[in-house]
Amino acid sequence: MPTARADLSVDLNADLGEGFGIWDLGDDDAMLDIVTSANVACGFHAGDPARLARVCRAAAERGVRIGAQVSYRDLAGFGRRFIDATAEDLTADVMYQIGALQALAHAAGSRVSYVKPHGALYNSIVSHHGQARAVAAAVLAVDPGLPVLGLSGSAFFAAAGELGLRTVPEAFADRAYRADGQLVSRREPNAVLGDVGEIVERVVSMVTAGRVDAVDGSTIPISVASVCVHGDSPGAVEIATAVRRRLTEDGITVAPFTA
Amino acid sequence: MPTARADLSVDLNADLGEGFGIWDLGDDDAMLDIVTSANVACGFHAGDPARLARVCRAAAERGVRIGAQVSYRDLAGFGRRFIDATAEDLTADVMYQIGALQALAHAAGSRVSYVKPHGALYNSIVSHHGQARAVAAAVLAVDPGLPVLGLSGSAFFAAAGELGLRTVPEAFADRAYRADGQLVSRREPNAVLGDVGEIVERVVSMVTAGRVDAVDGSTIPISVASVCVHGDSPGAVEIATAVRRRLTEDGITVAPFTA
Amino acid sequence: MPTARADLSVDLNADLGEGFGIWDLGDDDAMLDIVTSANVACGFHAGDPARLARVCRAAAERGVRIGAQVSYRDLAGFGRRFIDATAEDLTADVMYQIGALQALAHAAGSRVSYVKPHGALYNSIVSHHGQARAVAAAVLAVDPGLPVLGLSGSAFFAAAGELGLRTVPEAFADRAYRADGQLVSRREPNAVLGDVGEIVERVVSMVTAGRVDAVDGSTIPISVASVCVHGDSPGAVEIATAVRRRLTEDGITVAPFTA
Amino acid sequence: MPTARADLSVDLNADLGEGFGIWDLGDDDAMLDIVTSANVACGFHAGDPARLARVCRAAAERGVRIGAQVSYRDLAGFGRRFIDATAEDLTADVMYQIGALQALAHAAGSRVSYVKPHGALYNSIVSHHGQARAVAAAVLAVDPGLPVLGLSGSAFFAAAGELGLRTVPEAFADRAYRADGQLVSRREPNAVLGDVGEIVERVVSMVTAGRVDAVDGSTIPISVASVCVHGDSPGAVEIATAVRRRLTEDGITVAPFTA
Repeated sequence: MPTARADLSVDLNADLGEGFGIWDLGDDDAMLDIVTSANVACGFHAGDPARLARVCRAAAERGVRIGAQVSYRDLAGFGRRFIDATAEDLTADVMYQIGALQALAHAAGSRVSYVKPHGALYNSIVSHHGQARAVAAAVLAVDPGLPVLGLSGSAFFAAAGELGLRTVPEAFADRAYRADGQLVSRREPNAVLGDVGEIVERVVSMVTAGRVDAVDGSTIPISVASVCVHGDSPGAVEIATAVRRRLTEDGITVAPFTA
Repeated sequence: MPTARADLSVDLNADLGEGFGIWDLGDDDAMLDIVTSANVACGFHAGDPARLARVCRAAAERGVRIGAQVSYRDLAGFGRRFIDATAEDLTADVMYQIGALQALAHAAGSRVSYVKPHGALYNSIVSHHGQARAVAAAVLAVDPGLPVLGLSGSAFFAAAGELGLRTVPEAFADRAYRADGQLVSRREPNAVLGDVGEIVERVVSMVTAGRVDAVDGSTIPISVASVCVHGDSPGAVEIATAVRRRLTEDGITVAPFTA
Repeated sequence: MPTARADLSVDLNADLGEGFGIWDLGDDDAMLDIVTSANVACGFHAGDPARLARVCRAAAERGVRIGAQVSYRDLAGFGRRFIDATAEDLTADVMYQIGALQALAHAAGSRVSYVKPHGALYNSIVSHHGQARAVAAAVLAVDPGLPVLGLSGSAFFAAAGELGLRTVPEAFADRAYRADGQLVSRREPNAVLGDVGEIVERVVSMVTAGRVDAVDGSTIPISVASVCVHGDSPGAVEIATAVRRRLTEDGITVAPFTA
Repeated sequence: MPTARADLSVDLNADLGEGFGIWDLGDDDAMLDIVTSANVACGFHAGDPARLARVCRAAAERGVRIGAQVSYRDLAGFGRRFIDATAEDLTADVMYQIGALQALAHAAGSRVSYVKPHGALYNSIVSHHGQARAVAAAVLAVDPGLPVLGLSGSAFFAAAGELGLRTVPEAFADRAYRADGQLVSRREPNAVLGDVGEIVERVVSMVTAGRVDAVDGSTIPISVASVCVHGDSPGAVEIATAVRRRLTEDGITVAPFTA
């Protein structure tokens, strides 16, 4: 029987609402039964408004917190391609997306509680200071009270911190890490882990020890207030379920991050 | 010298922010110096977010009220083509657009103060009850305090009224009317008036007498709390300037509608 | 043992390439092993170019004929919403789509062999003469030798016939028919049949007797040179397989239509 | 009086069809009276099909050659933003665009005679070998006989040459050059020249002497078979007219490139 760890609590987040029109992606309802925070697409990489409205209602019914998963404007590339957007465009694009989701969340009886960049934008603003500042400026302009989810040590967190935004560091349950703490690109093999047992062990290590094994064999420190479990990988629901079960078994509270 | 008509006041509204990316349409800054209400595009028929942010800032600086000009999703058709959207899609599309503009207006230090449907959606919900209810439901869900601009006697106003929304009847300075009070389609010749003198006289007649001449020669009643002056017609700024000057000369107050 | 019906031959067609970017729809490879004609999406309702290139290559490898499945410009609505497009726009949109697929088919070592309108456009031009003429004019302008697939008795076939295009009447294996020979709208319940046995019997009746039962209980005549089996319905591959097997068992040749 | 230079001939090309839907850009008809080659947009950065069909007809009427101006998929950014597209996507996107324009050119009684990448794609494949190969591969797959316009010494020309495509080096009449022969980015001041006299002198120097002054004051060699005159700059028509007049006055033949 595990020792209760009253001091350990972690948020589970997943990307939801990532279909478009007739096209579905992942099992939003099943994931909403597992996670505590839903990164809801905002229409630029995925998410027609009717779908987003449904996801917001389903999240609100379950008491799952809603975050705005903002992206480059790129339906064809699912937001996974870097776009050399100007700061002015990017700031406005992000404000637009947050606002759109705010209306849908409000109509569902909930609200947008945080912002998490998606895909290539997420990766870009780990190191691209101009775009990082543009995204942070958008959040500030819409609501300075909105925390941002992202990678600890990123240019995005630096920019957000300078503007007084709260930053919530997250880790990825099923993504491989480089030795510098960044994610291995999806274009490389082995970027995404598939073994449930391995994923569960990694999450426990990340949450309890603040460490994760990188692809080069080294062990790196990682700061984790929220763990991202993907909703569209093969076996996504199974993985997320296993992660949540194991965390609970280990006495770790699964609850929304406090920011 | 005209007698002051302290009892007569009318709002002037125009469609703004209707370029997209590199493409401009009309002279937004010039129009903002004339009108009292700006129907700002929301990205579905026109309006990239950076442009919309700029228009919102320019409107806020001048104290011009911002309205959400919501549309079918149709950049290629500029929202001027009927789309047989389902009620669920349409409601969500309108909520999404209002919310997006709310964020941009808020960032500009202003807010969205009303909703006005654009183009084919405007025309469709004069008589299409399902879509009319869908649009009204969207406004209600986002903010029941938002008045709607539209055509008096329309299905849209009936639906909005049933939901408790405030309705603000408007007239078009430069559009030809049918005997039934609806607009002549833009696909027909003579749908848009171009003579400044004629337009000015029509506006005065509409505002002071509540009457306008229809294309069949009949004179029809018209209810006017706001007059729409177009920003993208040839000579748009000249026309709008002349309309405003004449109204002022006739002692009619040009001021935001009270709703 | 069935009597060989050397005189009976029918084409099997299915809609393919109907995913977009990250989103898949149906099992294109499995369907390509069953059908003789592939209605490949052209990017306006579905189909990113890389996907379309892959489908063209897979069709070419199997000797399956490629048709251009042209649509209204409506990714969000999957081409299933009527759009009141002008004739000029529609003609150009259809030419554009055919040409785009011609290049991809050519690069795959094949070619576009016919044109089939998709979704709401298909339904609209059953009776909308202006749009029917616009689509037929597009096919004529690109290649007068391209036959068109559609509904017998439709305005589209009348327009195509007037322009000298060859018309290939098709029937739908799994769609309910109204007494007037048109399809029951997808927005109505029971528009799509799901029982494999019933579907197979209908196809055999349509192909061998030229008759099908309509939803009002009447039996109506139907002209069939090609049978459309859907690729995205639940059990689509199973249904298509059963249809093909039964036709073969009944001695009916499954082969590309001759037009 | 200038000496006739029977040995000197140069092509004039301009970007056309770069509006979208309601939005116009530049004066296509005026430019078609000046240039010998029209780089017609293909819908990905600009160009609704109806507009493209009209431009193709207008070009065909004047005997102006049509080229496919292919781009990243980016209407919002007018194709001026680098997109990190995969080779597979980019090759298919380019094939799709060429094919679409081929159909429209064919319907106009003409044909696509060359390919010229647009905007950020043009700039990217000066040095991005992967994307350069992807674009060249697309041209080869659609028609190995199509020459490509671009920058001499670019990765694109290297890739095109390896595949056996003919390369046509062009110079820009109104763009500033860096000392390495690349264009100064549009995001930098002075990227675009505006003085008619200066532009005309540069063009004459480029065409007759094969030299141009770079922004650092150095004079660099430049290979020119075609000169690009922009259609959307302020004074574009005036500049293009002056360039053509001066070339003719200097005895230089203005005629389609031979490739």
